[in-house]
Amino acid sequence: MTECSVTFYPQNIEAKIKKGKTILDALSQTDISLSNLCGGKGICGRCKVKVTEGDYSAGKSSKLNPEEIKNSIVLACLTKVNNNLKVEIPEYILIHDKHADKDALRYKDSKGINLMPDYEAEPLVIKAFLQLNEPGLKNNIADLQNVCETLSKKLKIKSVEMKLPVIRVLPEILKKSKYQVTATIGLQREFAEIINIEEGNTVDKNFMIVIDIGTTSVVAHLVNATTKETISTTACFNSQAIYGREVISRIIAAEKNGHEKLQELIIKDINILIKGLVETGKVDINNIYGVVCAGNTIMEHFLLNLPTQYIRRTPYIATTVDPPPLRASDLGININPQGLLYPLPGISGWVGSDLTAGILATGMYKDEKTSLLVDIGTNGEVIVGNKEWMMAVSASTGPALEGASVECGMRAETGAIEKVSIENKKVVYKTINNSPIKGLCGSGIIDLVAVLLKLEIINRSGKMDETKSDKVKTIKGIKRYILTDSKEGNKSVYISETDIENLITAKAAVYAAIKILLTRLELPLSAVENFYIAGGFGNYIDAENAIAIGLIPNIDREKLKFVGNTAIQGTKMVAFNQDYFYKIEEIRKNTTYYDLMGAEDYVQEFQKAMFLPHTDIEEFK
Amino acid sequence: MTECSVTFYPQNIEAKIKKGKTILDALSQTDISLSNLCGGKGICGRCKVKVTEGDYSAGKSSKLNPEEIKNSIVLACLTKVNNNLKVEIPEYILIHDKHADKDALRYKDSKGINLMPDYEAEPLVIKAFLQLNEPGLKNNIADLQNVCETLSKKLKIKSVEMKLPVIRVLPEILKKSKYQVTATIGLQREFAEIINIEEGNTVDKNFMIVIDIGTTSVVAHLVNATTKETISTTACFNSQAIYGREVISRIIAAEKNGHEKLQELIIKDINILIKGLVETGKVDINNIYGVVCAGNTIMEHFLLNLPTQYIRRTPYIATTVDPPPLRASDLGININPQGLLYPLPGISGWVGSDLTAGILATGMYKDEKTSLLVDIGTNGEVIVGNKEWMMAVSASTGPALEGASVECGMRAETGAIEKVSIENKKVVYKTINNSPIKGLCGSGIIDLVAVLLKLEIINRSGKMDETKSDKVKTIKGIKRYILTDSKEGNKSVYISETDIENLITAKAAVYAAIKILLTRLELPLSAVENFYIAGGFGNYIDAENAIAIGLIPNIDREKLKFVGNTAIQGTKMVAFNQDYFYKIEEIRKNTTYYDLMGAEDYVQEFQKAMFLPHTDIEEFK
Repeated sequence: MTECSVTFYPQNIEAKIKKGKTILDALSQTDISLSNLCGGKGICGRCKVKVTEGDYSAGKSSKLNPEEIKNSIVLACLTKVNNNLKVEIPEYILIHDKHADKDALRYKDSKGINLMPDYEAEPLVIKAFLQLNEPGLKNNIADLQNVCETLSKKLKIKSVEMKLPVIRVLPEILKKSKYQVTATIGLQREFAEIINIEEGNTVDKNFMIVIDIGTTSVVAHLVNATTKETISTTACFNSQAIYGREVISRIIAAEKNGHEKLQELIIKDINILIKGLVETGKVDINNIYGVVCAGNTIMEHFLLNLPTQYIRRTPYIATTVDPPPLRASDLGININPQGLLYPLPGISGWVGSDLTAGILATGMYKDEKTSLLVDIGTNGEVIVGNKEWMMAVSASTGPALEGASVECGMRAETGAIEKVSIENKKVVYKTINNSPIKGLCGSGIIDLVAVLLKLEIINRSGKMDETKSDKVKTIKGIKRYILTDSKEGNKSVYISETDIENLITAKAAVYAAIKILLTRLELPLSAVENFYIAGGFGNYIDAENAIAIGLIPNIDREKLKFVGNTAIQGTKMVAFNQDYFYKIEEIRKNTTYYDLMGAEDYVQEFQKAMFLPHTDIEEFK
Repeated sequence: MTECSVTFYPQNIEAKIKKGKTILDALSQTDISLSNLCGGKGICGRCKVKVTEGDYSAGKSSKLNPEEIKNSIVLACLTKVNNNLKVEIPEYILIHDKHADKDALRYKDSKGINLMPDYEAEPLVIKAFLQLNEPGLKNNIADLQNVCETLSKKLKIKSVEMKLPVIRVLPEILKKSKYQVTATIGLQREFAEIINIEEGNTVDKNFMIVIDIGTTSVVAHLVNATTKETISTTACFNSQAIYGREVISRIIAAEKNGHEKLQELIIKDINILIKGLVETGKVDINNIYGVVCAGNTIMEHFLLNLPTQYIRRTPYIATTVDPPPLRASDLGININPQGLLYPLPGISGWVGSDLTAGILATGMYKDEKTSLLVDIGTNGEVIVGNKEWMMAVSASTGPALEGASVECGMRAETGAIEKVSIENKKVVYKTINNSPIKGLCGSGIIDLVAVLLKLEIINRSGKMDETKSDKVKTIKGIKRYILTDSKEGNKSVYISETDIENLITAKAAVYAAIKILLTRLELPLSAVENFYIAGGFGNYIDAENAIAIGLIPNIDREKLKFVGNTAIQGTKMVAFNQDYFYKIEEIRKNTTYYDLMGAEDYVQEFQKAMFLPHTDIEEFK
C-alpha cells in the first residue's frame, strides 16, 4: 500500500501514513494534540483543519458549512489521505497552544483546606548515611551483607534487599568511599529495597515526584522527601486528548491502536513535567528516587499499559485496582534509573486512586462523623463514610461540567468565561486571564444557568422565556441566550436550550448519585457532617450557584468544604509518610464500590433531578 | 588498528581480532574451549595450536621443543596475530571433544548416602488451580484482586504479588478460561509472586532445573516440582575453562576482559544443559518455572556478572554471599520468561553455596552430634559443627587433587588412570572407560602415591628409591616412576618426585585445614561423629589410600561417609521444599567463616603435614 506524507503547519511536523488512512491517524503520530471531543467519530466537529495542498476524500458532516468546504476545511477524523498533503491547523483547536501551559497551571496548586498530616514517620524513599565496618581477615563479611546488616540495625527494618544492578557497583563504591556511604531505600510492599548506594553523605539530596494524572490535566509536584517541602509545581494537559477528551473515546482508541500508544503519550507528558520541575527546582534528576502517582483507574491502566477494554463493558471490571510498585525506568520515566514508581490503589474501574488519595487527604476514613466527598472532574465520584465504613459510587456525568457537550463550551482555558454574576439586574461575566471571550467553561456554565434561573430568563425545566430578555433569540428553531454577537471574525458566544439540557443531565447524574448512595445507607442528608467538594475544577465553582441549579444538595453552608485537588494532596501524604502507604491500601480494601448500573431506582432519582434545582423543590428550601 | 581474521580448524570457526592480540584472545570469542590451565600466562603449555597459514609472532616458551617450533606449533596465549591466520587445534587439547560430555556425565548423578528429606512442604514453585468467582455488577472485583484473594485463601499465604507482564494478559485469560485458571507461584523472599496464569488445570506441568556450577563441571537435573521426581540429569564441563582451570585465572581474565565474558560462557553452558534435559525429559521449556543453583561463590558471581576482583585479594571479600532471587530470563537463561532463578546463599568468598547445600543435604546443621564435612574439588572446604554451631574454612589446595600441576596429570576424562592397586606386589591400574592410557587423574594420583608408599618405592617425604623398582628412572635430574613408556607417538605416563611434592602440598593443605579447625574449636578428632566426604570427585577416592597418604585423618572407618555431590542434593532439597529455602539462609547466617590466612599456626600445621601421611606418625596409627 502506498505511503503518504502529511505535513502539519504551522508546526511543520511530518507524519507518514498509508493511503486511505485519515488525517487524524496522521496527527496521532505527532505530538500535536487537537481538542477533538468525540474520539474521531465526526460528531463534535472540533477537529477542523485546512488542507492547503494534496488530494483527499472528505467525509460529509453537518459540522461544516459550504464556505468551509469551499476553503478546503475538513474534519481530520473523516478525511482520508489520497496522496501527500499539507495541512494547516487553526490555532484555536490546538490544546498545546501558547496558553496551554498557563491554563493547565491553574490546576497545579491545591487550594482549599489542608488537614496538616502527621509527617513524623519516614517518607516512602529514605536516605541513610552508613558508616560501615571495614572488613578484614577476622571480619570477612561480604559487601552486600555488610550494607544490609548495618542498615537493618540503623533503621530497625527486617527485610532489606538489593537488586543486581546496584549490587554490581557495590564493591567499588565501598572501597572508594572508605566504607562511608549513603543508601537510598525505597519501600516495596513487603521489604525495603536499597535502590542506590553512593559515596559519602548525601542524605540532603532525596527528592520525589508526586503526580495526579487527570483525564484532562496532569499535575506534578517536585518534593524534598527529607524536609517534606514542595519545591516546584507544574501541570500540562493530558496529551491523550488527541484520542478524545473522554476516557471512553480513549479506551476505544486503545482497543483500535494498542494501549502502548496511550502509554507513550502520558509517559512523554510526565517526562516533560519532570524536566520542567527539576530545572525550576535546580535538582539533579538522578536524585529523584521515586514517583508517587494517583489518577482515575483508566489513566492508571494507560500509564502501565494494562488492558482497559473490560472497564467500559458491563460489569466494568478493571485489570487491577492495586498495581505493584515498579521500576520507573521500566516504563521510560526519567528519574534515577533504579527509582521506583508507586501507582496508588483505587477502588474500582470507575473510582480510582485519585479518590482513595482524596479520602486520605480529607481524613474522612478516620473521622467518627460521617462525611461525603464529591470529586467533580470529567467524571463525578461520590464517597460517603466514616471510620467504620465507606461506600463509593461513580456517576457518568458527560463532559458538560467541564465545558464540553455545550456548543460554546470550552475547557477552562484563556478566554473562557469562568464567572457569571448579576450586577444591577444585568448579566456580567469574567474570562480567564481577562482575555477576549472565546466560550464558556464549566464554572461559567453553572454560574450562567443559575443566573438565568434567578432572573427567570429560564424556567425550572431550563426552557427560555423570550419575553424576559432581549438577549434570547431563536436560531434554527432553538432558543439561545446570546452573550456576545459575532463580529470581526469572532464567533458568537451563547448558551442554547440544548446546552442547558446537557448541563441538567450532568448535574442530575451527580445529584442522583449522592441521593442513591445516601438512600442505600439509610442516611438523611443531615447526617452528613462534612461535605467535601474536591477536584481542581471544584476550586472555581460558586457554592451557592451549584446548589441553586441542584448540582449539590442544599446542605448547611458551614458543612461545605472546598478541598481542591485532594488527589495531589493525598498522594503527597503517601510520599511523605510510609504509614500512609499502608493506610491507603486499607482505604482501598475498606471502601465498598456500589455500581449505579445495578441500582434500579437510579434512573428514577436521575429523572427527578432533571429540573432546576429538582422536581421536589422542598429539598432545596 | 587493523582487524585480522583467525579461522580455527577443524571447527572452521572464524574470529575477528585486532592485529597484535593473541590467538587465545581470538579463541575466547568462539565456543571452542581449550584445556589451558594457567589462564594464559604461558606456564602450563597446554594451549598448543598449529598455525597453518598467516603471519604471527610467537612468544618464547620452554614448553615447545625445536621440532614443534619448526612445525609452526605455538602457544595460543603467547602468539600475537599479525595478519589473517588459519589455526589447527589438536584434538587432545579440546575440552569439548567427543568424550567431553561422557566424561562430564560421570558427575551428573549423586552417589553415596541420601538422607531422605522431608518433602511434605510445598516446592519453591507451586501451581494452584483456581476456580474464581465470575464478577458481576454486585461483585465488581478487579481481575488481579480476584486472583490474589482467591489464591491467598487457598494457599493460606498473606502476601501475593504479580508483575506487569503477567497482569497485562490477565483479563483475556480469565475471560477465555471462564475464570478457571492455574496460577504458578514462585516464592520470593518476602512474598509469593504469581509468575504465570494459564487457562484450565495444568497443575501437573510444573518443572524446575537444579544446577551445581562447579569450577570444572556443571551438573544439571530436571525435576518435577509437584511429584518431586528427578526426570533427567546431565552435565558438561564449565566452558569458562578457556580462561584457565582455576578460579584465580578466571578472576584475572574477568578483570582483564570483563566479567560479562565469563557470564556469557556459563549461561551458554546452562542453556545447552537445559535444552538437553527438556529433550530427554520431553518437557515443554515454558513449563520450567524455576532454576535453583548452587556453586562456589566465584562461580555464582560469574553467573550474576558480579565483581570478583576483591575475592582474590586480602581480606578476600565477596560482593555478596546471598544474592536475591531474580528473573532467569534477565540473565538470558531459557526457561519460562517469568521463571525465577534462585542462586543459593554461601558463607564467604571461598566457601560457597555448594557447601551450604552440602550442610543441608547431610543434615549436620540439625544433628546433636558433631560432624565434619570435607568437600574436595578444585578447592578444599571443611565444615565442622552441629545443631548449635558451625565453622567453615577453605584450603587452597592447588589443582593437584584434580590431576593438574602434575606433569602427566589430567582431568577425570577418558583415558585417565583413576584406580591404582597392588596385585602380586605389582602396580596395576585402570583407566576411565578402559581406554588407552593418557595420564593420571586425581584419584589415580592418590592411589598411586599410596601404593608407591606401601611398596616403599617412595619414602615418607615422597622421595623415590631407585633400588626398589626398575620403573624408577632419573631423567633430567628428576626421578620418575614410569607407568608406560613412550611408543608409537604416545607420551610416556609417569609420576615424578616433583609431582608427588605437589600432591603432598595439596593434601597437607586439606589436612592442616581440618587440624586447625578442630584445634580452634578445641575438639579432638574423636569428637567428630560423622566424617562426610563430598564432591563428585569424592566418589572415586579410595578411603584407605586417602588416609594412607594423610589427605584425611585416621578416623574410625564407620564414621566415614562418602556422600557424593551434596551440592546438587541440597539444591534439590531447596527446590522441593520451601522450608529449606529459609533453612539454607539460616545455615548461611549460623556458619562462621574462619580465614586460614589469619591463622598463625596454619603454616606450622601445614608443614607438619608435608610428610606421608604426616610428621607425627602417631596420628595415623
